[in-house]
Amino acid sequence: MKDAYNVKVIFSPALLPYYDVNKDDMIVVVDIFRATTSIVAAFEHGVKSIIPVRTIQEAKSYKDKGYIVASEREGKKLDFADLGNSAHDFMSGKLSGETIVYSTTNGTKVIQESIDRQATVVIGAFNNYTALSQWIKKQGKDVYILCSGYRNTFCIEDTLFAGALADSLLQDQSFISHCDSALIAMDMWKAGKDDMLSYLKRSDHFNRLKRRGLDGVIPYSLTLDTATAIPIVDEKTGKLRGEKIMNCE
Amino acid sequence: MKDAYNVKVIFSPALLPYYDVNKDDMIVVVDIFRATTSIVAAFEHGVKSIIPVRTIQEAKSYKDKGYIVASEREGKKLDFADLGNSAHDFMSGKLSGETIVYSTTNGTKVIQESIDRQATVVIGAFNNYTALSQWIKKQGKDVYILCSGYRNTFCIEDTLFAGALADSLLQDQSFISHCDSALIAMDMWKAGKDDMLSYLKRSDHFNRLKRRGLDGVIPYSLTLDTATAIPIVDEKTGKLRGEKIMNCE
Repeated sequence: MKDAYNVKVIFSPALLPYYDVNKDDMIVVVDIFRATTSIVAAFEHGVKSIIPVRTIQEAKSYKDKGYIVASEREGKKLDFADLGNSAHDFMSGKLSGETIVYSTTNGTKVIQESIDRQATVVIGAFNNYTALSQWIKKQGKDVYILCSGYRNTFCIEDTLFAGALADSLLQDQSFISHCDSALIAMDMWKAGKDDMLSYLKRSDHFNRLKRRGLDGVIPYSLTLDTATAIPIVDEKTGKLRGEKIMNCE
Repeated sequence: MKDAYNVKVIFSPALLPYYDVNKDDMIVVVDIFRATTSIVAAFEHGVKSIIPVRTIQEAKSYKDKGYIVASEREGKKLDFADLGNSAHDFMSGKLSGETIVYSTTNGTKVIQESIDRQATVVIGAFNNYTALSQWIKKQGKDVYILCSGYRNTFCIEDTLFAGALADSLLQDQSFISHCDSALIAMDMWKAGKDDMLSYLKRSDHFNRLKRRGLDGVIPYSLTLDTATAIPIVDEKTGKLRGEKIMNCE
């Protein structure tokens, strides 16, 4: 057990190779619009397991084997897929107990890249914010909060969540941070937390979703603590399973 | 001539491949602590030409040929070098008219990576802030402000300058930005500009320089407009030459 655990924020998956992440550490993958918000929603609504896959081809071959497949590229559900990438697609309860194969433009690729680093990989979004923070505090690990960004570039919404989570962790004295990215992410959270929607209206990806008519899920994506599910990658299978924190204060 | 030129901020050289920079664009390389501040200072004090090189081996082979060599790694001047990486090393006037070979841990590598993109490459720092902004406004190009960062990760001081420059350019209606990194960099500039030293005291690299006793150059590095030199990479030779803006308002 260490005296204090480090919190770092990584602004893009393309920067992950420059951080010394090892198997004793934890990576929190963040893709607010929309993959990680949707994954949390899925487990919250009873999904049993999610198989994250990188490519459309992989998703399609699972579909051919009879799996339920959620798959999108650039915001649009692919023709062969059963579900898209909106959290609303996973909230009906009809998927309770099911295993879903999931492939998105960005988020599931980032999950796979995190798995490659052999750390503990968990999924964070505003919907499981408090539960996730409480769960992380019990793990005794250095924490890397990995923003998925947009096409490997920085995005505001993921960083805003990274700042929120770093801020919450650092309120516990067992966490420290000397990370410039974490500092700025926390500044962003301080500036944006009281009115996230206004704060994000300037953001590029927010406006891209609006232009594409995909902004219906934005209010849900920016609402704190509608879920207590903690999606965790099973080290042996590479599949996501959901852990539940029952007594969120 | 376009209606408006785009301003983007790139938080790390590792993200440069994800931006569509082409030969008609401009890259402004920023490494406040300390390479770009030093390069501006060198031209301001009469240096004729700077040859940026990536490796210690290259720097050493130039030294063997009789060149004046400035070279450091992790803040320390290398044994064979004539000069280190502090702006003060270049300000005596003794180097007036000279050509210097320059190799640093980070900054000169980033200059080389920018040259590889075949865009116009210029050097920015707080010391040539206003002159640089005025010069850029006359060029009619999309502008990518490239932060050198620290070992490919985000750093506050370079981003603060990127925000300052973006803010200045966007006051001119011929520039626009839809870039999340530029937005946040400008927020940082708004928050930090009235007391940069306090703003930066939290930063990792700032404290690293202090620990190594290399903080003597920090006040100069954070002082606006002590220079009007614009270091530009000559497309044909790959060497830096200095352009002077004489009538800075």
